[in-house]
Amino acid sequence: MADPIRAVQAELDDLTEELFEFLRIPSVSARSEYAVETRAAAIWVRDHLKTAGLKASLVETDGHPVVLGEWRGAGPDAPTVLIYGHYDVQPAEPLELWTSPPFEPEIRDQRIYARGAADDKGQLYLHLKALEILLRTKGTLPVNVVVVAEGEEEIGSAHLLPFLERNRERLACDAIVISDSQMFSPETPSLLFSLRGLSYLEILVRGARSDLHSGAYGGAVPNPATVLARLLASLHDDRGRVAIEGFYDQVVEWDAATREGIRALPFDEEGYREEVGAAELSGEEGYSTLERLWIRPTCEINGLLSGYTEEGAKTVLPARAMAKVSFRLVPDQDPEEVAHLLRRHLQRLAPTSVVVDVHELHRGLPWRGAPEGPFFEAARSALARTFGSEPVLTGEGGSIPIVSDFERVLKAPAILLGFALPGANMHAPDEWFPLPHLELGIATLIRFYEELARTGD
Amino acid sequence: MADPIRAVQAELDDLTEELFEFLRIPSVSARSEYAVETRAAAIWVRDHLKTAGLKASLVETDGHPVVLGEWRGAGPDAPTVLIYGHYDVQPAEPLELWTSPPFEPEIRDQRIYARGAADDKGQLYLHLKALEILLRTKGTLPVNVVVVAEGEEEIGSAHLLPFLERNRERLACDAIVISDSQMFSPETPSLLFSLRGLSYLEILVRGARSDLHSGAYGGAVPNPATVLARLLASLHDDRGRVAIEGFYDQVVEWDAATREGIRALPFDEEGYREEVGAAELSGEEGYSTLERLWIRPTCEINGLLSGYTEEGAKTVLPARAMAKVSFRLVPDQDPEEVAHLLRRHLQRLAPTSVVVDVHELHRGLPWRGAPEGPFFEAARSALARTFGSEPVLTGEGGSIPIVSDFERVLKAPAILLGFALPGANMHAPDEWFPLPHLELGIATLIRFYEELARTGD
Repeated sequence: MADPIRAVQAELDDLTEELFEFLRIPSVSARSEYAVETRAAAIWVRDHLKTAGLKASLVETDGHPVVLGEWRGAGPDAPTVLIYGHYDVQPAEPLELWTSPPFEPEIRDQRIYARGAADDKGQLYLHLKALEILLRTKGTLPVNVVVVAEGEEEIGSAHLLPFLERNRERLACDAIVISDSQMFSPETPSLLFSLRGLSYLEILVRGARSDLHSGAYGGAVPNPATVLARLLASLHDDRGRVAIEGFYDQVVEWDAATREGIRALPFDEEGYREEVGAAELSGEEGYSTLERLWIRPTCEINGLLSGYTEEGAKTVLPARAMAKVSFRLVPDQDPEEVAHLLRRHLQRLAPTSVVVDVHELHRGLPWRGAPEGPFFEAARSALARTFGSEPVLTGEGGSIPIVSDFERVLKAPAILLGFALPGANMHAPDEWFPLPHLELGIATLIRFYEELARTGD
Repeated sequence: MADPIRAVQAELDDLTEELFEFLRIPSVSARSEYAVETRAAAIWVRDHLKTAGLKASLVETDGHPVVLGEWRGAGPDAPTVLIYGHYDVQPAEPLELWTSPPFEPEIRDQRIYARGAADDKGQLYLHLKALEILLRTKGTLPVNVVVVAEGEEEIGSAHLLPFLERNRERLACDAIVISDSQMFSPETPSLLFSLRGLSYLEILVRGARSDLHSGAYGGAVPNPATVLARLLASLHDDRGRVAIEGFYDQVVEWDAATREGIRALPFDEEGYREEVGAAELSGEEGYSTLERLWIRPTCEINGLLSGYTEEGAKTVLPARAMAKVSFRLVPDQDPEEVAHLLRRHLQRLAPTSVVVDVHELHRGLPWRGAPEGPFFEAARSALARTFGSEPVLTGEGGSIPIVSDFERVLKAPAILLGFALPGANMHAPDEWFPLPHLELGIATLIRFYEELARTGD
């Protein structure tokens, strides 16, 4: 029988072309005008699962469909691996900041540039191909496989949890494998030990009924932009900590070994600063940059809007001011509780001259993984064999809220091994995925199953 | 000879229609796409001055032209009155908040609704018609008259001061009369004793080179929106005072009589609150609403923009955050000095992790009038006769920066008598001018000249 790893190498041009086809579908779940395209991406995934040899179908939801694939050839006594990914992508705007169009994939400097190349179509594709090539070359897999690909990850996965709960039995598994994150560096593969959760809210401050002349009324009528600025300024103290009462109550302090492990990683602080292009890095006092990103919660302003924002001077006293504010959470913070704490904080501080409304837009639980067990070991070993270097344990500042839901509903551990690289511009213009990781990613996943076969012996 | 006041009453329908024609010209000086229309408004004014019997022409500048009208029939020994107004208007956006289109004047509830109805085309028109009707019915005026109508008042009058300086001799006058303000109330006419000055700046805070994922980078990379909020929050103290060092150093404390006069005015605080539609009024502690508006300086946020501001949640860590901030100034504050104080304040407080730039967009000196002299007395008497009530002395929160320039260059006092009413929505949607004041305004100005004739006797 053919060697699956050799098959990957031999088919690389075709694989690239096939991935490009997938990336060309503008499956922007947030925009209703892309509903047809988003569904087209789901169909694309379903058809590729079928071609690979899985039983596959679209499961309708009140939003975009879930693609469900199943291969039960290992028999009822063999373990089952559930693979989760998403076929939807972030909006590509602002388009003018892309070097090449977001939905016309292009290779430059050994990188595949396209919206979704890293997050997550490119990485979902690795799984599809690993399964296909293994089934084609070996005719079997050492475990049963369930694939769940959703189309609403970028808009909050509203229909995935109900789907999981409705299909609890059918989705029963021994591990959940997800590739939607990045490696520590090109030389150092990594496995995740944590994800931050999210509480995303919109604050609206209202003053007068309509915009007024800032000369005629300024000084006597409340300015909601000023009130908003004061409220937002109250969210941090001078040491970079979140200054909302009770915010840190549920934060688990990490053990010394984990913090030691993080500090031991070869992290180039100055290189990171240069990459982001800020004059200086900043954050919570007493923590390193990686700790600030991985194991500490944050409060960020994501958007601000009030009054006149175009060119030049307009002397307007705004009637309203809006801020989008999000918190990244760490175990065991709860987004619902954090939203409550924020509301209470604002209520206490807001002057009675204005009306302050807080709307919750999005939430997700933080996650902490257990770096152990046969599936974790198989992933570790597959990464080490493929990249020639032991994977390190890393955290991830972003959120994949569904990870906690998967573990809770299916009672199985999640293994997060990602193949994107730092600076991949997920959610930003010029998103990219390293071209060599197309081969190495598929090879890693093939070896993951090979390792499981060995464990099962 | 016909009675000019009767002529106004007889021609009222025609006057309304003619004013509508003027208001239909979208002379938005701030927008280059309206350059032709803005010029058309200048031509309209020039032609109406000619029809009235004045020598009139457009004087070109590097921006929109100044309309210059002259009537020298009173002879070299008679006094000269200079009338100033502007034919340009504020942008009408947001258009969707207008009940009727801004450039299609409409009468509802005895109000003329249109952009420019109050500020200032409607009030400039009163002067054109008073002159025309007097010259038509009486054949003469008791004083020489110079009319200066500019087209850049709403964008800072950049070319008016050079025009005044170049034409100092030709514009020599004994009083400058301006109608670009409002009466104290429908029952109570008023004359202005003060205008606030203006310092308008834009603050730009820059962090990372481009927008970043707020999960992947949040907590370790400076957030310019957070920095901006903290800087803006530092501009006021808890008593509503501007907290910039040195800001009040040049503020002239008003005499007890003036403050007493302001407090004695029949001002309906609750009615004012209801009109603006705020939950409560607010401002500097220790001052009444009218004092806050007329004799105290302010700092207002006019605009805020950063990151993602559309619907829903986007987890972006913004690269930049912008605020438009303006100060209303009182004698003897200097806008240049205030801009300097703000820069110093921000420099002191801004963290080194971000870059803060401050651009000055607009400035204007405050003004304090001397409520005395024959021209002031003529205006007072004309208002009292027309409205049946003695005018009160009021301040004005807004700025007409050119007033100080006029007084300084031409060495003559300015008389500010306005005919708009409180809540006129200058600079806002649904700007309006009271229909009855079309007649009463022209009648007042006719009586102003009649009073001057009597004084001259």
